[in-house]
Amino acid sequence: MQKRIHNFNPGPAALPLPVLEEIQAELLDFKGSGMSILEMSHRSRWFEDILNGAVDRIRRLLNVPSDFDVLFIQGGASLQFAMIPMNFAPVDSPADYIDTGTWSSKAIKEARVLGRDVRVIASSEDRGYGYIPSDCTADENACYVHFTSNNTIKGTQWAAFPSFGNIPLVSDMSSDFMSRPFDVHPFGAIYAGAQKNVGPSGTVVVIVRKDMLERTPDTLPSMLKYKTFVEHNSLYNTPSCFIIYTTGLVLKWIEETVGGVEGVAERNRRKAQAVYDVIDDSGFYRGTAEKDSRSLMNVTFRLQDESLEKRFIAEALEAGLGGLKGHRSVGGCRASLYNAVEMEAVQALTGFMKEFERKNG
Amino acid sequence: MQKRIHNFNPGPAALPLPVLEEIQAELLDFKGSGMSILEMSHRSRWFEDILNGAVDRIRRLLNVPSDFDVLFIQGGASLQFAMIPMNFAPVDSPADYIDTGTWSSKAIKEARVLGRDVRVIASSEDRGYGYIPSDCTADENACYVHFTSNNTIKGTQWAAFPSFGNIPLVSDMSSDFMSRPFDVHPFGAIYAGAQKNVGPSGTVVVIVRKDMLERTPDTLPSMLKYKTFVEHNSLYNTPSCFIIYTTGLVLKWIEETVGGVEGVAERNRRKAQAVYDVIDDSGFYRGTAEKDSRSLMNVTFRLQDESLEKRFIAEALEAGLGGLKGHRSVGGCRASLYNAVEMEAVQALTGFMKEFERKNG
Repeated sequence: MQKRIHNFNPGPAALPLPVLEEIQAELLDFKGSGMSILEMSHRSRWFEDILNGAVDRIRRLLNVPSDFDVLFIQGGASLQFAMIPMNFAPVDSPADYIDTGTWSSKAIKEARVLGRDVRVIASSEDRGYGYIPSDCTADENACYVHFTSNNTIKGTQWAAFPSFGNIPLVSDMSSDFMSRPFDVHPFGAIYAGAQKNVGPSGTVVVIVRKDMLERTPDTLPSMLKYKTFVEHNSLYNTPSCFIIYTTGLVLKWIEETVGGVEGVAERNRRKAQAVYDVIDDSGFYRGTAEKDSRSLMNVTFRLQDESLEKRFIAEALEAGLGGLKGHRSVGGCRASLYNAVEMEAVQALTGFMKEFERKNG
Repeated sequence: MQKRIHNFNPGPAALPLPVLEEIQAELLDFKGSGMSILEMSHRSRWFEDILNGAVDRIRRLLNVPSDFDVLFIQGGASLQFAMIPMNFAPVDSPADYIDTGTWSSKAIKEARVLGRDVRVIASSEDRGYGYIPSDCTADENACYVHFTSNNTIKGTQWAAFPSFGNIPLVSDMSSDFMSRPFDVHPFGAIYAGAQKNVGPSGTVVVIVRKDMLERTPDTLPSMLKYKTFVEHNSLYNTPSCFIIYTTGLVLKWIEETVGGVEGVAERNRRKAQAVYDVIDDSGFYRGTAEKDSRSLMNVTFRLQDESLEKRFIAEALEAGLGGLKGHRSVGGCRASLYNAVEMEAVQALTGFMKEFERKNG
């Protein structure tokens, strides 16, 4: 009997157990092909079905309009930080960014390295990135407004997305993509590393509005142009086949087992509420994000001092609760409650938190 | 009982069965962690051991000197076609390329898109890319000489690598990396998609000489600089953890089960010889590469006409021999005999070829 912990890792993170079991069962022989999915040509009909199936599910789950393309690209969101301005920000046009912490700041940095006219139109740095800015005005000539939908390190999340009229939104949704429904229409581009809510690490889902592709300069290498991925259905070169396959299985689980994005959003709301309730009912745990900006994905909290936090994390692990350490840049504790984390795991966590408080409070 | 075919796919390709079985056995609980390798933080000690173990094995297997770094980068060799000139070819210095077919041509194209001073110093285009050019002279100011060590589509391979004094070699070794020993010293950089000889698709192994990093301009985004990967041990951002893990297992199999690169090279030589012998002993099959340029990795051959080739491929598949179709750009037949293809599979192939000739010759 293999042991399974409750996994609160911030990403790579928990995957649905039925998905892991399906991968395991067919690992030596994918659907009677006589090959592992790991050994199979990306030009085979099996893989084309996997890829197209994953794209179609994303379209259905998020109601992606027909003037958008869905792509799989390697290199993580960090490569997207560069590809977005390379493709969509002409050198002479302002690119507006909202800074809500580490990941936004990295996106800003890469656009600046590329010599773009970056304007930070709002920032929550003044209060330690503990909140989401509420009023932002974009430059009327901005080529896009970029924001990070959920901030894993500081535990904040946009409850509703900002709006800037006709200026296309661009968002890094790496840590809350597919965790709730949203309207794709106002976006020029959305990108999300799979390894939080929809799969393992090794692929980024990109949703891009077709008219944005007209901005791409011809001087970009093939692999840095979204157009290349659009024109070849993400198969210009060999993609990360296994990672797309696993992502497809997670998307299937979202659609068929937990009620689509609406179902998963309700699950996620209840899970986060349960942990925030323990925090708010105690004088022992202290949430780090301002209440109206709290993330449903990453619940960040502190205890009285670092040695107590260290003990909390160690005893939690002994109790079968893993991944509760805060990001190395800020310390503290963090419970990441992505799609695949079950309510049962959250109940184990809240039970442990109450017991730890009782013994140490 | 699951069925397994003999897999001659050109990549993604056959993996060693013991590797697949090990992945399967520990897929739900990696070494008592209570998590799948697919769910595990890239900053965990488990993953650091996996990554460092894979790097160390590459160092040992190829005797990589200490002034070289070993990196894992996403995006395939196609992204390397751009990263190599971006990092190593100053705009005002000639970059020399040898053109031996499709993949070389793509590397050349990307360097030109980037505005580099590309010179094609040798090409085998005059005889349909069916051979490896024997005399090439580099520009004395060349920043590097780039070549493709094995050409999957035309079935040619450099038996010995060219030499240009102090000018660093740069090679795309995607399709014969780790298939034979070679001297790393004359290289400035080597890159290889894993999906032929060392793993599944989704990572590229890059070996780069440290002094090459000094050429990198500051205006490159983080994810397009080799320096970033060197400074962060390939962990600047979340890598494709599962793909690196699987690659590590294949490297372990090469080192511990089949006698290292020397052992695997001898296996590969015998496998290719067996297929070429059938071709050369028959008037029925015709090898497409010139004899002294033949690849030990991809044996490309034609039959009398396309309808017979189609039947050959179909009947082979019914006999449990998969992946024998030539590249869509050239047609014909191709048997890819990468590291994980067993002699038993080759014997099944040569037996089938002789029988097919007997019935149709």
